Formats: sequence, C-alpha cells, structure tokens
Amino acid sequence: MIGNSHASPEAAAVAEDVGRLLGRLGCVVISGGGTGVMEAVSRGASQTGALTIGILPGDQLAHGNPWLDVVIPTGIGYARNSANVLAADVVIAIGGSSGTLSEIAYAWLYDKPVIAWAGVGGWSERLAGDQLDDRRADRIERVATLADLEGLLRRLLPQLNHHEA
Amino acid sequence: MIGNSHASPEAAAVAEDVGRLLGRLGCVVISGGGTGVMEAVSRGASQTGALTIGILPGDQLAHGNPWLDVVIPTGIGYARNSANVLAADVVIAIGGSSGTLSEIAYAWLYDKPVIAWAGVGGWSERLAGDQLDDRRADRIERVATLADLEGLLRRLLPQLNHHEA
Amino acid sequence: MIGNSHASPEAAAVAEDVGRLLGRLGCVVISGGGTGVMEAVSRGASQTGALTIGILPGDQLAHGNPWLDVVIPTGIGYARNSANVLAADVVIAIGGSSGTLSEIAYAWLYDKPVIAWAGVGGWSERLAGDQLDDRRADRIERVATLADLEGLLRRLLPQLNHHEA
Amino acid sequence: MIGNSHASPEAAAVAEDVGRLLGRLGCVVISGGGTGVMEAVSRGASQTGALTIGILPGDQLAHGNPWLDVVIPTGIGYARNSANVLAADVVIAIGGSSGTLSEIAYAWLYDKPVIAWAGVGGWSERLAGDQLDDRRADRIERVATLADLEGLLRRLLPQLNHHEA
Repeated sequence: MIGNSHASPEAAAVAEDVGRLLGRLGCVVISGGGTGVMEAVSRGASQTGALTIGILPGDQLAHGNPWLDVVIPTGIGYARNSANVLAADVVIAIGGSSGTLSEIAYAWLYDKPVIAWAGVGGWSERLAGDQLDDRRADRIERVATLADLEGLLRRLLPQLNHHEA
Repeated sequence: MIGNSHASPEAAAVAEDVGRLLGRLGCVVISGGGTGVMEAVSRGASQTGALTIGILPGDQLAHGNPWLDVVIPTGIGYARNSANVLAADVVIAIGGSSGTLSEIAYAWLYDKPVIAWAGVGGWSERLAGDQLDDRRADRIERVATLADLEGLLRRLLPQLNHHEA
Repeated sequence: MIGNSHASPEAAAVAEDVGRLLGRLGCVVISGGGTGVMEAVSRGASQTGALTIGILPGDQLAHGNPWLDVVIPTGIGYARNSANVLAADVVIAIGGSSGTLSEIAYAWLYDKPVIAWAGVGGWSERLAGDQLDDRRADRIERVATLADLEGLLRRLLPQLNHHEA
Repeated sequence: MIGNSHASPEAAAVAEDVGRLLGRLGCVVISGGGTGVMEAVSRGASQTGALTIGILPGDQLAHGNPWLDVVIPTGIGYARNSANVLAADVVIAIGGSSGTLSEIAYAWLYDKPVIAWAGVGGWSERLAGDQLDDRRADRIERVATLADLEGLLRRLLPQLNHHEA
C-alpha cells in the first residue's frame, strides 16, 4: 500500500476501508509506515487482526505509526521506496504525491502488478489505466470501488480464495 | 539475529536452539533471510509459532529461506546489512564471517545492544566482551549458554517478562 | 542528467549535444552511467574535456559506459536513483521511461531544480511544465532547444557565468 | 580511503601524507567526504591537484568537507559504507572506529584489495595482516610507512607506473 503522508479525509477513509478489506482477505499489509494514507491503511488492517508492517526511511524504531506490528527502519531515506514495492505481491496506490509517484515507477520497473485507486485524486488517479513505458504489456489497473478491488485482488492472488475470513 | 550463510553444524544447532528460545520468549525474529545460521534461527523460531522476518539483499521474494513468514527483498545488496540491525531491539550474533562483521559494526554504530555467542567460532566469538570503539560505555555481551542468553534478554527487554509462553 | 538506457536516435543526438553544452559551460556531468541517453550525454561531455561521473546500480566498476572518468558502483540497485539526483545541482531529463520517472519524482521530492526536454517523447516531455505535487511553488522547467537550456542553466547556476569556456 | 571522522593528530598527519602520495601517483581519491581522516586525505590529495570525491551518508551537497572536487550525497545513511568501497580499486584504511570496521568488512566481502595502516591505532592496526574469513586466500595488507604503501600500490595497480608525476 503506497500513498501520501498528508492524506485528505476522503483518501484516509478509502485507505482505512482498503486496509480492512486486505485484512479480511488474509493479506499482510506493508506500507511506508508513516502518517496519512499509510497510517489509515495500517489502522484498518489492524482492526481485522491482519499483520501490518512499516518500512521506514529513517533509522528509528519509534517513528512508525501506532498501527504497525513490525517496524523496519531502513535508514536509507527515500531510497527505501524501492524496498517498499519489492516486498509486495501487489502494489496498491491511493492518491499520492511525488514520493508515491516514485513508488509507482519502481513497482512498474520491478514488474509488480500495480493497482491505482481513482476517485481521491493524486498520482494514483492520474496514472490509473496507464502504461508507464513499453517494457510491460499490462496496464496500471484502475479501481474505484472496494468490490472492484476485491475482485481484482482475487484474480491476481489466487491464494486469497483459500483464505477463511 | 545475524550470522553466516554457511554455518557449521554446531553453529546451526545453536542458532536453531536460539530461535526456539526467542520464539518461546515472544520475540519477533528478524534475520537476513538467507541460508546457514539465518535459516536455522528462522526454523527454530517458526517451530514455536513466532513471527519470522527475512530482510534480503536481493530483489526477489522467492529467495528467502522456507521458514520466513515475511520476506523483505530490499534490492540494495549488502547495504541491507545496515537495515537488518536497525530493525532490531537487540542484535544477537552467532559465528559469522565478514558480512556478519559488518552487521556487528553497524549494530555498534547505531547504538543497538549486541550479544555475541561464544563457542562456535567466527566474529561473534572473536568480539564477545569487546568494545568496538569509545563511543559507547558498554560492551558486546558475551553469552555461551541458552540460560545466559535468556537472562540477558530478560534484562535488556523487560517487556519479555510479561509474555505468556 | 537522467534518461533512458534504450534511447531513440533522436534522444541520443539531443543528449550528446546537451553533454557538449554542459561541458562547454564548465559543468561536471553526472548520470546513471549506463547506455542510451546516459552514454550519449557522457560522450558529448567527454569530448569537451568535462569531468563525467556515472553512479551505477550494480557493484562492478567495469559496468560503466566508456565515457566516464569516475565510476561509482553503488551496489544498491535502482535505489541508486535517489543518489543520482541528490548529487546534482540541477537535474536535466531527456526522454525516459519508468526509471527516469522515479528520478524525476526524487528530484522533485528532494527540492532539486528539474529541467525536462520536450521533443523526444518519454517522461521528460510528458511532465515538462508540470508540478508533481503542491510541496513546491515552481514547475518542472520545459526546454526544447539548446539555447533555452543554456539560458536556463545560466539563470539557475550563476557560477557558470564566471566559467571561461 | 577510509577512516575515522574524529582523527588523532597522528592519524590526520598520516592521512594527509597518504593523500599527497595518492595524488602524486595519479590516483583519484575517494572517501566518505566527512571530517577527520577523510578530510585530511582529501586535503593532502587536493594539494597535489588530484581529483577528490566524497560519498556522503546524508542528502546535502553542502555537508562535504572543503577539499572535495565532487560530492555525492547518497541520502542512504551509513548504508553508503558499502558504496564507498565498491567505488575503489584499492581500499586503504587509516585508524578507524566501528564505521571504518564496517567498511573494511565490506571491502573484504566485495573482494577489494585492502591495505591497513599500522601505527596510529584503530581498526586498521588491529586487522593489519589478518584474514576476515576464509573466502579469500590473501590478507589485509599491513603497511607502516609511505614507502611501503607506494610499493604496494604500484604492485596492485600496475597502471600507476605509466603515470607521469
């Protein structure tokens, strides 16, 4: 899950709903561990009992948001944006400014499926349905509802269908 | 937990025992996610139901050892040795060659308590009881038995005493 | 200088011209050290006697292009995209796919002036004149000719005006 | 060149002499770009007109020492210790505390020739003549005079013999 550390109320509400969905589906929820969208998705996932992990730019365990089960302070600054997406089976972007843009670019570069939420602005909306370059035949998947997202995740991650919610 | 990817049978046996102890104490067990000591400690911890995490140098989720619940492929090569120790409350070294030495150095530099196992050779034995430089007043703690290790961990991490095994 | 490792003939020609301009202006020319636009700009700069530096993702000194005076193999994979822009006074993008996009995003995030070439496609053209988010009041500067680029560089880097070509 | 940011007067004097020697031999001198031994070696090299490069942990161009021709602020913290040694043909350690120790370990791990100065204390003295593990057949080379160092460098880097001082 990638997104902005300064989230609008709408983006934060979507992120919390998405976190709950991911938790209900049995996913481990990895984010950048910060505030805003990162905190909202971790809170939502945490409410379902899902494992939440934050991969931080700084070097302090104490700087993760309060909804993280595991904090990985990389100490490598925003170069950690690369590690964030490498740890994922699927990358989901909600809103996002330049930091999130770098993560979407990395996700594409590292051949990870990318899902972009349309409806709360930011880079996820701007790039939903797009191809970043010609190295891949697929597109950044556009979703605008939780039902769409659930359907897409079940298609991308067949193992989810064996999870007992 | 840090240690060599090519472990002697003795070092692997110690690492598996240490993994079981950590799991029994309620610890999350983080390692470099590779073979040898890293695999043995993850296997031991996993047997107790503990959460096991591997922070890998490469960029492939599939390259973690089979005993990891969570794989973080950082894609930053051995520069990830820095992130490994930053994610820990306490760093425990068992044996180890030059890679482990770099991690012991980082743990010292980043002010993490360092515990070094004496009895299976490697850098953990060589540096047990030592100070790497004068920036810290404490020493690398030397342990040679599981009972010593458990006592030391309970002193360093008081929260362990509230864990119901 | 950032840009694609697979450059069109047009993008490579522009990059070589830009390299010569930078060299003539007395700049040190830093790139990712690879093929395509990175090689072309290094070759152009090298022809003028400028110092050329390549900051590589891999860990091998031998993997830089032949026009580099200094090779820095970071060993941290594409996380080096962050270091590339941090080393610059001004970031110039020519064309570019997802890797270049991540660098443009980092340049914006780290508050570096960004100049984007319009006329050879890629992300530099797509983002020329744009703002990536609201953290900055300025825009990605759009240039389409060498004269525009020279004027802009002389404005952004007043020290260039004291250089004897 | 690796060494401590807090250098004794003896270590700083050696480092400055070594910097001058490296410059006279036609070397590019790369260091961590900080104070202490890093600054002294850069100053010595700079006096001979050699190219000096500093690879910094932070993200600010302004934080390099004043004797650097090129500053590479990596923004990846002490994970940059890995990049420092990867950029070198030969790694020379003078003194050093835990940070330098991590760099010696990386140099060994990445199969770089390592030369350690004996006579000013620190990890370079402690490890001079040693093998860090059994992956290499050679040893950390011990030098205690400039003449020894020059001879060793001429043997390790035959291209130096074609340099006109």
